[in-house]
Amino acid sequence: MCENCGCQNLTHEHIININKNVFEYNDSFAKENRKFFEEKKITAFNLLSSPGAGKTTLLVNTIKNLQKNTNLAVIEGDQESDLDAEKIRTTGVKVKQINTGKACHLDAHAVAHAVKELNLLDSSLLFIENVGNLVCPASFDLGEKRKIVILSVTEGEEKPLKYPYIFAVSDVLVITKLDLAQYVNFNFDACEKYARSINQKMKIFRVSAKTSEGMGAWFDWLKHQGA
Amino acid sequence: MCENCGCQNLTHEHIININKNVFEYNDSFAKENRKFFEEKKITAFNLLSSPGAGKTTLLVNTIKNLQKNTNLAVIEGDQESDLDAEKIRTTGVKVKQINTGKACHLDAHAVAHAVKELNLLDSSLLFIENVGNLVCPASFDLGEKRKIVILSVTEGEEKPLKYPYIFAVSDVLVITKLDLAQYVNFNFDACEKYARSINQKMKIFRVSAKTSEGMGAWFDWLKHQGA
Repeated sequence: MCENCGCQNLTHEHIININKNVFEYNDSFAKENRKFFEEKKITAFNLLSSPGAGKTTLLVNTIKNLQKNTNLAVIEGDQESDLDAEKIRTTGVKVKQINTGKACHLDAHAVAHAVKELNLLDSSLLFIENVGNLVCPASFDLGEKRKIVILSVTEGEEKPLKYPYIFAVSDVLVITKLDLAQYVNFNFDACEKYARSINQKMKIFRVSAKTSEGMGAWFDWLKHQGA
Repeated sequence: MCENCGCQNLTHEHIININKNVFEYNDSFAKENRKFFEEKKITAFNLLSSPGAGKTTLLVNTIKNLQKNTNLAVIEGDQESDLDAEKIRTTGVKVKQINTGKACHLDAHAVAHAVKELNLLDSSLLFIENVGNLVCPASFDLGEKRKIVILSVTEGEEKPLKYPYIFAVSDVLVITKLDLAQYVNFNFDACEKYARSINQKMKIFRVSAKTSEGMGAWFDWLKHQGA
């Protein structure tokens, strides 16, 4: 029942029950994915951000650095188009595009099918680029080892306070587009303080894929994440 | 049933039925809001964008231009915090913050309560700043006269192709942060072509709230939207 007006058309409780079913369904697939990844020693990363934060550019540059010595694969999530998969394909690594249509996030079921099609090699790193959205993907476990939230400096330093749930569930924050920070007066210290006020243990990187500033530390961290 | 694996844990059909209930519930409140706005000659705008596209900055500058001659009010939607409402409050106009918690969009029910609290004057312009999200808010009618989608140049010109639903339902596209276009090689012609391939009738503005470039045309358009 609505706390404000007492209306009963569709109660809050009803919506919670709906969500419970959706999450249970998703979690059963996430559990299977995680088991599969562990058996094959595959390390999966779930990349989360707003639209346009620079996930794909970060990924292309990351692949170029790591692909010589590591088996890599990518799953791309977007409502429509395979523009991101095309960009990844130029690097030569395996990629599968998932179009979610009206849905606002990837789910573990769709990822399970994509993983099957990719025919992954043992000990691969798998990057799953989620639909650009700072809200919904926070709630859907895909079976990944790490959730990585990516925030570009042009979005503003206060985002962890306005979208806390995605920062709470992520292990790592990558602050992107360092090269633009000077034009938007981005306050790094404030951003990191806000992020850690939500998630004390958060690992934080500051990078520019354009100038390569900070990318070395990010690559090094990834290289040590393999199973 | 899943087209790929035939699993039946939670069918696609089931999810569609859930959504149908949620939308019917929302639409009943949207209808009431629209009726109320029409009776009071209030013009409501639903502002949609990714997080950090510059909705609040655009709004603060818009209010400063219009408030001398027009009754204005604002509803702010965010998962958490009242940072945006605080920024709006500095202009002196009426503002109500809605925190959606884990929800990814405003709904017409919450807006109905906010409207009641705002005690709006007849013939007002009401700006409803939705939760930063290029996906979910597209599906929820709030009773507004116009949906306005805001895209910053730092997000990239291809966004209409990747998130077509929100561009399909919006009447207006405001491209923001013109002052940063030179640093990110934003292709305005391509962006507008993509937007119009989704929505032929879309009205498009190019603005920078920082330098005021293009803001005059946007203000003029708003001044002619009153009931």
